[in-house]
Amino acid sequence: MAGNSFGKLFKLSSFGESHGIAVGVMVDGCPAGLEISEEDIQKELDKRKPGSGIAGTKRKESDSIKILSGVFEGKTTGTPICMLTYNEDQKSANYEQIKNLFRPGHADFSYFKKYGFYDYRGGGRSSGRETLARVAAGAIAKKILARHGITIAGFVKAIGSIECKREFSEKQLEKVYDTELRCPEIETEEKMKELVKETAAKGDSIGGIVELKAFNVPAGLGEPVFEKLDSEIAGALMGIGAVKAVEIGSGFRAAKSLGSENNDQITAKNGKPEFLSNNAGGILGGISTGQDITARIAVKPTPSVSKKQKTINRNSENSEIEVIGRHDVCICPRILPVAESMLALVLVNALMEQKAQKLG
Amino acid sequence: MAGNSFGKLFKLSSFGESHGIAVGVMVDGCPAGLEISEEDIQKELDKRKPGSGIAGTKRKESDSIKILSGVFEGKTTGTPICMLTYNEDQKSANYEQIKNLFRPGHADFSYFKKYGFYDYRGGGRSSGRETLARVAAGAIAKKILARHGITIAGFVKAIGSIECKREFSEKQLEKVYDTELRCPEIETEEKMKELVKETAAKGDSIGGIVELKAFNVPAGLGEPVFEKLDSEIAGALMGIGAVKAVEIGSGFRAAKSLGSENNDQITAKNGKPEFLSNNAGGILGGISTGQDITARIAVKPTPSVSKKQKTINRNSENSEIEVIGRHDVCICPRILPVAESMLALVLVNALMEQKAQKLG
Amino acid sequence: MAGNSFGKLFKLSSFGESHGIAVGVMVDGCPAGLEISEEDIQKELDKRKPGSGIAGTKRKESDSIKILSGVFEGKTTGTPICMLTYNEDQKSANYEQIKNLFRPGHADFSYFKKYGFYDYRGGGRSSGRETLARVAAGAIAKKILARHGITIAGFVKAIGSIECKREFSEKQLEKVYDTELRCPEIETEEKMKELVKETAAKGDSIGGIVELKAFNVPAGLGEPVFEKLDSEIAGALMGIGAVKAVEIGSGFRAAKSLGSENNDQITAKNGKPEFLSNNAGGILGGISTGQDITARIAVKPTPSVSKKQKTINRNSENSEIEVIGRHDVCICPRILPVAESMLALVLVNALMEQKAQKLG
Amino acid sequence: MAGNSFGKLFKLSSFGESHGIAVGVMVDGCPAGLEISEEDIQKELDKRKPGSGIAGTKRKESDSIKILSGVFEGKTTGTPICMLTYNEDQKSANYEQIKNLFRPGHADFSYFKKYGFYDYRGGGRSSGRETLARVAAGAIAKKILARHGITIAGFVKAIGSIECKREFSEKQLEKVYDTELRCPEIETEEKMKELVKETAAKGDSIGGIVELKAFNVPAGLGEPVFEKLDSEIAGALMGIGAVKAVEIGSGFRAAKSLGSENNDQITAKNGKPEFLSNNAGGILGGISTGQDITARIAVKPTPSVSKKQKTINRNSENSEIEVIGRHDVCICPRILPVAESMLALVLVNALMEQKAQKLG
Repeated sequence: MAGNSFGKLFKLSSFGESHGIAVGVMVDGCPAGLEISEEDIQKELDKRKPGSGIAGTKRKESDSIKILSGVFEGKTTGTPICMLTYNEDQKSANYEQIKNLFRPGHADFSYFKKYGFYDYRGGGRSSGRETLARVAAGAIAKKILARHGITIAGFVKAIGSIECKREFSEKQLEKVYDTELRCPEIETEEKMKELVKETAAKGDSIGGIVELKAFNVPAGLGEPVFEKLDSEIAGALMGIGAVKAVEIGSGFRAAKSLGSENNDQITAKNGKPEFLSNNAGGILGGISTGQDITARIAVKPTPSVSKKQKTINRNSENSEIEVIGRHDVCICPRILPVAESMLALVLVNALMEQKAQKLG
Repeated sequence: MAGNSFGKLFKLSSFGESHGIAVGVMVDGCPAGLEISEEDIQKELDKRKPGSGIAGTKRKESDSIKILSGVFEGKTTGTPICMLTYNEDQKSANYEQIKNLFRPGHADFSYFKKYGFYDYRGGGRSSGRETLARVAAGAIAKKILARHGITIAGFVKAIGSIECKREFSEKQLEKVYDTELRCPEIETEEKMKELVKETAAKGDSIGGIVELKAFNVPAGLGEPVFEKLDSEIAGALMGIGAVKAVEIGSGFRAAKSLGSENNDQITAKNGKPEFLSNNAGGILGGISTGQDITARIAVKPTPSVSKKQKTINRNSENSEIEVIGRHDVCICPRILPVAESMLALVLVNALMEQKAQKLG
Repeated sequence: MAGNSFGKLFKLSSFGESHGIAVGVMVDGCPAGLEISEEDIQKELDKRKPGSGIAGTKRKESDSIKILSGVFEGKTTGTPICMLTYNEDQKSANYEQIKNLFRPGHADFSYFKKYGFYDYRGGGRSSGRETLARVAAGAIAKKILARHGITIAGFVKAIGSIECKREFSEKQLEKVYDTELRCPEIETEEKMKELVKETAAKGDSIGGIVELKAFNVPAGLGEPVFEKLDSEIAGALMGIGAVKAVEIGSGFRAAKSLGSENNDQITAKNGKPEFLSNNAGGILGGISTGQDITARIAVKPTPSVSKKQKTINRNSENSEIEVIGRHDVCICPRILPVAESMLALVLVNALMEQKAQKLG
Repeated sequence: MAGNSFGKLFKLSSFGESHGIAVGVMVDGCPAGLEISEEDIQKELDKRKPGSGIAGTKRKESDSIKILSGVFEGKTTGTPICMLTYNEDQKSANYEQIKNLFRPGHADFSYFKKYGFYDYRGGGRSSGRETLARVAAGAIAKKILARHGITIAGFVKAIGSIECKREFSEKQLEKVYDTELRCPEIETEEKMKELVKETAAKGDSIGGIVELKAFNVPAGLGEPVFEKLDSEIAGALMGIGAVKAVEIGSGFRAAKSLGSENNDQITAKNGKPEFLSNNAGGILGGISTGQDITARIAVKPTPSVSKKQKTINRNSENSEIEVIGRHDVCICPRILPVAESMLALVLVNALMEQKAQKLG
């Protein structure tokens, strides 16, 4: 309901518009006693910061986060953690010229239809700036998961038609944020960079694929029918702006496969179960199997392009638009920490629910 | 929480195991005064019935539904509608031989890890039989949507590598249930049939793709951040057993596109907005635009294959398994009505929430 | 939402009308591995059975419960437990005469206003028969609580102005269901019986007070702001038909007290905290203190009286009504097991949530 | 879950500790297009301000509210409204002396048991300061209700044993905030003032009763079984700190009544239904009847008294405590706006749900 909260046991509620006064998040249900600092949060937030990298916007956001509540003497108190950052870079003037035009591919039109108005100053709630709330909450979720040995990682698998082919281990993904495009395959990243530069030169943008992994997830998380772990992950990831598809495990490849190929056969090694493949992506019947959880998302090209496009204004009159300003050429590198956060939030909820269900 | 309910304003709660006494559903939140009969429900349920078509299992289920509550003098009362069907075809004996073996690709292993046991008599809750609850509830949801002019349709787009290429209109999909594989492209369906027969002959199974459409959806449905319409649809569809991927609109194609290609430009015709394409799949910023909603799901091959596969037993000892019995070769034609139901359930909830949000 | 479910982690969904086909309940979120049988449930249900005792209706209900799902080989499976009883005693004819008249004190009028119709055959969902769902679910909740040493008990404290004055221990309440009016103070119960007989002779009904206790509740259950343990208990108890007031601990007495009187002072005995009184009713700041939880409810007289009363019909025309038939003179003895169940359901949810919140 | 949110369609999430950095609230689900200003909110907040009146604490809080999001060009946008006030008066030093002692009647002990620590600087989340969030959200709820003609009012009915006897109309309650103790019966208020002064002189505190009314509520709001309107109201009111009992309509009086007395008979006047009494408090079967909704709460005396009391410290050692500082003698006048807000929040949710349930 209402749509600005996520999660049930570990719940975040997000607020704020890109060009309003502040953007923030309240986290409710975080267990008491967890060590947490503004630095912990800031470190994760910096991963989604614009202004760095060739693919990103040149817009600067300091995104300096303040914890307003729920932490006392360096530890969580069990009560709501409100975190907030004031908006600084509010050049609303940039938007005046397009005030009455619906930007194609943006939410202007649908917001206008739903609410009877839309926030022309940079998208309001539909702005990528809102994801700050998710990453701040995700930073806490990751700290809880870490206590259970669970880690979340990911990488930019493809930009346009340039695609990584290899699989990557937990160790290989550790330093992915040190690369410019968050792609661990150096030769592929080089090609991606060229494509990004070419696209930028044309005043256009380009889509891509992000792959996500959760390592060391215990078997047994998730629910069997409507709150399946894969269902929750799919909902969480599709809920990130610009995401148009979600795959778990073999994904669309499964559609072309035979059962004998797609089934992950099982053997026992030293008395421990071992799967011979991971087409399931770590989830069977909605419940984790103990294998690595694997998901991929298709990210659309950012709709803000400087090429001329047909559109209409609020009075349904024909017009044209060129979206100028500092926009991302490919959003994938910046979506990565957001997607990791959503996966972390799903898992921390599943973990807490699993604890609740243990018969005392 | 708990995971057997779906929806918030129009909520269904599903119960029952495939080889238990009964399978059923309780629908809560259905508006009062809707005409509904057991025939209305039965008609939809018959679409998912096994025993018909070359792709399906030969197992017979009469699936005769009884309405136990919530309907009085032919109309809904506003109170819970419980619908139930008793299980008849309970040849648990079939399952005795594999009682201790985890069937690869099935939920046996993950259920065992979660609950400390699993229902070896046909999967229990993880059985496709549970989807009866979704289709029964979906039948009611569709009746409500119909009052608003909204219709849901879909078709089997691909089986293995055999894929339909055309787009289909509302009218063209009207009779899709009259075809054997629920594919509206006759020449493609012929090829699909051959593939299904070949696969059956090998004792194997095959995956596919199902496409879904919602026609005549008003603009403005959905929420902007966490309960985005596409997020809800993705979660709902990924929560159907065997689904491994969900696409909205251009889906994975968006990942390879330029912004100038993927944006749906807008023109005004006779004072009405008209989009020049529908890569958005009818949803922008999580909110419906008034265009047709389009989603596709990748369906994995049914894991029950009679080919020999490696597995382990409950004591983590190596073994082999051949799953015999009457199983579906390709589940796509039978998943179609389930997927339609899930889409209907998402939309009816969004519609009711939208009503609630109107300022009085 | 929708209003027929209760609880979040241990959730029940109730369905069925008093004069429909069946009444039942689905319990979702019950941990796997709990031993449960139809006899366990039936034993609790028999406590609310009409037809016994001078205060109750002479209407007979066999209320023979069937478990349809969620229990396998004598133990819960972790999946939904659906329990059902078919309605037998459906003398709808009795109700024909009052079909168009709103019975004063009943829900006929408000249901008619909400739904545009009402179920004249005994109240439909507003019938006390619905409480069967609560007691069946409560029976399971009590079994879970028992594993943590927590017990729930209660008694009829007052009927009309006849009121018990003593406090009762867990042991003293153990056999309260052996008494006719569920009152542990023998001399008071005698006076209550007389009052009940007199009231019955006048064709009238009478209210009363039920007191509830939860023994051995660990400190720390409940949430600090909106899902306070006392808030949840108050909501749960006020949600039982006929309840018009709820007190926790000193209740209305606190309104007349000084702080120095109402505060429960604390001492340490053998290194353990001991409160010198229990005006808090076992809850401070919404969270359990480890003292016995104490609540009281005011129960209104059943509105079905054979005395002539003014009312109107569906067309807003003046009329009179005498509600004939077999009705309870005082509902308190039959509300007791329902109220115990609601308290058990609140506690089992709080217990599960507390588990979820433990930092791993 | 988690416990810091209230409501489903119109949902508030509260955060902040009394002696932390800030206290605030996020409102989600507020319809778009409602005119709202910081002045509207501030006006309601000022009603709960300490520092005025003989019954209240002399502590000063400026409580200057800032709207951070969700309002654009003077109207709500349909997205979350975050409102915040920074804490100013943080004399934590006052609390140092009692840092390790559990204050009797306060939540220190139960918080310590739940979270392993407690916020000794004025109660943290259990402080009355948290109610600022409720009143700010309630201010918006009241504005929505006003559009439907619904008004909420209330008064201090009793302090200690001094009690108002009369009933008050909507008009008579309009100026109740102009009186010092928020009691509309002048002669009674005079006696109350004396009692408050006497109690203050003794270093003690005193309880009381607050009565609440909702006028002009349409028939048909509320749900029939678990989310009954009275159940929701009881939960909402009992969830306010210091409340120990809730009555709806005749409340505890019903327990001593005959059915023929307690039933509200109905007549038709000019073709319109009119009830001859309002023992139901405007709610039958959990659903509003169109009569005024009436509720009363018992408020305990504030536990902070300067009289010496027995307590223990964190190491379970015996001690004594005198709570010095500026505390409320009787909290009733300041609870009134909080209770009104909770009632408004329940009603706005019921109203929105009722809209959602209308068959289109």
